[in-house]
Amino acid sequence: MASQFFAIVAGVGAGTGGAVAKRFAQAYPVVLLARKPESYNDVVSEIQKAGGKAFGVTTDTADEASVASAFETIKKELPDSKLAAAIYNVGGGRGLKPFLELSVEDLDSSYQSNARGLFLFAQKALPLLLESVEESPHPPSLIVTGATASLRGSVRFSDFAAGKFAKRAITQSLAREFGPKGVHVAHAIIDGGIDIPRLKDRVINNGAPDGKISPDAIAESYWHLHTQHRSAFTQELDIRPYVEKF
Amino acid sequence: MASQFFAIVAGVGAGTGGAVAKRFAQAYPVVLLARKPESYNDVVSEIQKAGGKAFGVTTDTADEASVASAFETIKKELPDSKLAAAIYNVGGGRGLKPFLELSVEDLDSSYQSNARGLFLFAQKALPLLLESVEESPHPPSLIVTGATASLRGSVRFSDFAAGKFAKRAITQSLAREFGPKGVHVAHAIIDGGIDIPRLKDRVINNGAPDGKISPDAIAESYWHLHTQHRSAFTQELDIRPYVEKF
Amino acid sequence: MASQFFAIVAGVGAGTGGAVAKRFAQAYPVVLLARKPESYNDVVSEIQKAGGKAFGVTTDTADEASVASAFETIKKELPDSKLAAAIYNVGGGRGLKPFLELSVEDLDSSYQSNARGLFLFAQKALPLLLESVEESPHPPSLIVTGATASLRGSVRFSDFAAGKFAKRAITQSLAREFGPKGVHVAHAIIDGGIDIPRLKDRVINNGAPDGKISPDAIAESYWHLHTQHRSAFTQELDIRPYVEKF
Amino acid sequence: MASQFFAIVAGVGAGTGGAVAKRFAQAYPVVLLARKPESYNDVVSEIQKAGGKAFGVTTDTADEASVASAFETIKKELPDSKLAAAIYNVGGGRGLKPFLELSVEDLDSSYQSNARGLFLFAQKALPLLLESVEESPHPPSLIVTGATASLRGSVRFSDFAAGKFAKRAITQSLAREFGPKGVHVAHAIIDGGIDIPRLKDRVINNGAPDGKISPDAIAESYWHLHTQHRSAFTQELDIRPYVEKF
Repeated sequence: MASQFFAIVAGVGAGTGGAVAKRFAQAYPVVLLARKPESYNDVVSEIQKAGGKAFGVTTDTADEASVASAFETIKKELPDSKLAAAIYNVGGGRGLKPFLELSVEDLDSSYQSNARGLFLFAQKALPLLLESVEESPHPPSLIVTGATASLRGSVRFSDFAAGKFAKRAITQSLAREFGPKGVHVAHAIIDGGIDIPRLKDRVINNGAPDGKISPDAIAESYWHLHTQHRSAFTQELDIRPYVEKF
Repeated sequence: MASQFFAIVAGVGAGTGGAVAKRFAQAYPVVLLARKPESYNDVVSEIQKAGGKAFGVTTDTADEASVASAFETIKKELPDSKLAAAIYNVGGGRGLKPFLELSVEDLDSSYQSNARGLFLFAQKALPLLLESVEESPHPPSLIVTGATASLRGSVRFSDFAAGKFAKRAITQSLAREFGPKGVHVAHAIIDGGIDIPRLKDRVINNGAPDGKISPDAIAESYWHLHTQHRSAFTQELDIRPYVEKF
Repeated sequence: MASQFFAIVAGVGAGTGGAVAKRFAQAYPVVLLARKPESYNDVVSEIQKAGGKAFGVTTDTADEASVASAFETIKKELPDSKLAAAIYNVGGGRGLKPFLELSVEDLDSSYQSNARGLFLFAQKALPLLLESVEESPHPPSLIVTGATASLRGSVRFSDFAAGKFAKRAITQSLAREFGPKGVHVAHAIIDGGIDIPRLKDRVINNGAPDGKISPDAIAESYWHLHTQHRSAFTQELDIRPYVEKF
Repeated sequence: MASQFFAIVAGVGAGTGGAVAKRFAQAYPVVLLARKPESYNDVVSEIQKAGGKAFGVTTDTADEASVASAFETIKKELPDSKLAAAIYNVGGGRGLKPFLELSVEDLDSSYQSNARGLFLFAQKALPLLLESVEESPHPPSLIVTGATASLRGSVRFSDFAAGKFAKRAITQSLAREFGPKGVHVAHAIIDGGIDIPRLKDRVINNGAPDGKISPDAIAESYWHLHTQHRSAFTQELDIRPYVEKF
C-alpha cells in the first residue's frame, strides 16, 4: 500500500505561512505550528472548508521541549503518514532602533526565532524527511523563509540581520549535508513588504498596484521548489515585487 | 480581439535551449534561434509533431546585423503576435587552459556569445516585451542562462567566467531597469553538468542517478519564472543536482 | 594637552588576538580580554618586556555583567585615556559533527561567542570610540575577526557558520551606522589555518612553507585597517595563505 | 648581486593610477602606461623631482600589438631588472544611458578597457612576476582596480558593469591559478567618487569633508596589499569614504 504523505508549516499566520499551508493542503494534509492557536485557527478552518485536511499544534519552535512535544503530537495524529515537506517560516522581530538603544534581548529574540528555532525544527523534521526519500511523490523538502536582511546588515538592522544571516547559514549547511541524501533544502529571500491585512494601510513602493508581495505568489514558488526534480534543485531564490528597488 | 503571444529561444540545441523551447511551445508558438539550422531543426520538428508551432531562424546573436535580420524575419512571420517570453541561452566555450596558454580570441569569443549577444538580443526583445505588458497572460519575461562561472572565477576559467560574469551584470541591470516597467528579467545559475546526448558518456558526480541536470527540469523552472506574479518576481536562482558539491 | 589613546583586544591567546595586541602595543597601551588569565598573561608579559603597556581583564564577552565590569575596570585603570581601537577576536567552537549529532547547546555556544559577545562588546566600545573621533591619531576602529564560515555554510558547519554569519551581519550593520559618524568598522575573513603552537603538528596545505597564516601577518593587516584614511575605509577583506584553495 | 626590481602601473592619470605610481616609486623604479603621454607626463616629472625613477610608455592595453610593444620597450629600458608589482588601473567609460539608448560600441568599449586590456596586460606581466617569486622583496603582485559596478549591475550601468564584472572574474581566476605559484593577485572595489581635479566641483556625499576618496589613500592600501606576507594574502577588499552609503 502506498504511503500517505503530509506537510508541516511552522510559523503560520495571515501571511506567508498561511498561504503556504493552503497551497500545500491542495496536495497533502498539513500540520500548522504557531505559538498561539489564534494564529493558525483561521487557516485550519479555511483549509477544512476547502476540503483539505489540517490541524494546528501550539509550538514555540525556539523551545526544545515544545518542539519535541509537537512532533510527538504529530506522530500520534498521523501515525501512518510520512513527511513530504517541512516549511520553516518563523522569524520575527526587528528592532529598527539605533544600535546603542537596542538591548541584548532584542538580539537574543531574533536568534531564538530565526536560528535556534530552525535548528530545533530541522533536527526533528530531517529524520522524517530522510525516511520519505524513496517514496515521496516529490523530493522531500525543507524550505526556509529568509528576508532582505539575510544578505545585508543594514543600518538599524543588526539584531534582525544577525538572526536572518544565521538562519541562512544553517540552511546552506543543511542543503550541502542532506541534498546528497535526497532531501531538498531551499532558502527564499523575501525582499519586500508582504500584502497582509496588518500592513494594509502601509504605503509601500508608492502604493503601486501589486507593490506588496502576494503571499499566494510566494506559496506558488515554494510549491515549485518542492516539485523540482532532484537533478535540478534550487538552493536559493529571491522574491520581490516588480517595482521594488534592490 | 485578444492578441496572440509567442516566445523566442536563442541558443537552441539538444540541451537546455531545446527543452525550454518545447516547454514554452505548450503555451506559445516558439521561434528558435541558433547559428546553424542543424541545431534547431530537430526541436522544431518535435514541437510540430506534438501539435505546437515553431520555426527556426539562423542567427549569430553576437552579430548586430544578424540579430536585426532575425527580428525582421520574426516580425514578418508573426505580424500580429506579441512577445511573451524571450530566453537567452547562448554562451559556450570554455578554454580550460592554463591562463598563459589562452589566446585573447578565447576571451573575445566568450564575451561575444555571453555578453555581446545578450546585449544585442535584449535590445531587440525588450521593446517587444514592453509592448506586451498590458495583455500578456503572464508578465513578459527575459530569462537568461548562467553557470557556476557566473559567480566564481575558478582556475583555468578566466575566459569563460569573464563572459558569464558580464552576462550576469547585464541581466541584473536590465532587471532593475525593466522590472518596474513590468518586464520580468531573471537569471538562472546552472551549476552542474547537463544530461545531453553529447555528454552521455561523461561520468559526473560518480555516475549517481540523476547526477546530471535534466534539461526538462531546467525548462520547468524557466516556465515557473515566466508565470510568477509580478508582485513576486525571482531575479536569480540556482539549479544543481542533489549530489553536486557546491 | 593631547589625549592619551589605548586599544582593547577581546579574545587573546596564542594566535590572532595575541599578535594583534602586540602589534597595537607598538602604538598604544593595550587592554587584553579573555575568559581566563592564562590566555593573556604571556602576551601581557611579552608586551611589557618589549617596553609596551598592557594589562588583562578576565571577561566573558557573552555575559552582560562581565562585559560591563570589564569596561568599568578599564575606566578605572585608564581614567584619562580614550579608546582608539577595539578588536573583537572572540568566537570559537566548531562542532564538525553531522547535523543530527549536534546539540542545540553547540549552536547556542557559537551564537554566544560570535554574535552575542560582539553585540555586548560593541555596545560598550562604540560610545568610547565615538568620543575619540575628533582627536584620535587614526580613525577610531572596531575590527572584527571572521572566518571562511562567515560566507559559507559548509557541511557539518551549521553551528559554527550560524555564529559567524551573525557576527558578520552585526559588523556590517555597525559599519553602516557608525561609519558616517567617523568610526571605522571592519570585518576580516580569515580563510585558512593559523600558525599557532596548538596546531603545530596539523598538516595544512600539504605542509607547504607558509601554508598556515602567520598571526603577525594578520596583525599587520589589522593595523593597516586602523590607519586607513577616513576617505578610504575598507569594510571587509579576506586573508588566506597563497596556497589555500578557495 | 641582488636583482633590481621595478613596478608597472597601467592606467595612469591624475587619480588612482598616478597616486599608485608615486607610492610605488618610493620603493621601485616605475613604468607608467597610458594611451596618451599627457596622461603620464606630469606624474613622471613629479616622481623624478622627488628623486624617484619613472618613465612612461604610450600603450593601448586593449590592443595586443601595443601591449607587446610596451613590454619590449620595458625590457630594453630595464634589461637587468625584475618585475615586483603590476597594477592594472585601466577601465573607463560609463554610459549612464537607458539601456535602449546604448549602442553595442558602449559595451565593447567597456569590455576592451576593463577585461580585454587586463587579459593582455596580465599575459605579459605574469611571466615576469613568476620570475621574481624567489627574490622579490615582497611577494610579486598583480593588483587590479574595480568599482562598485564590479559587484552590482545597477540601472543604466549594464555596459559599465559588464566590463567590471568580467575584470573581477579574470582577477579571481588568476588569483586561484597564480597564488599557489607565489604571485599575489588582488582586486580592489573602489566604491565612491575619487578626489581628482576633474571632479573638483562635483558634490558627492553632500560635500562632506573627505567625502571623496583620496587617491593617495588608495595607493597606501595597494602598497599594503603588495607587502602582505604570502601566508596572509588579501584577494579582495573594498574602499569607500566613511560617509558613503552602501
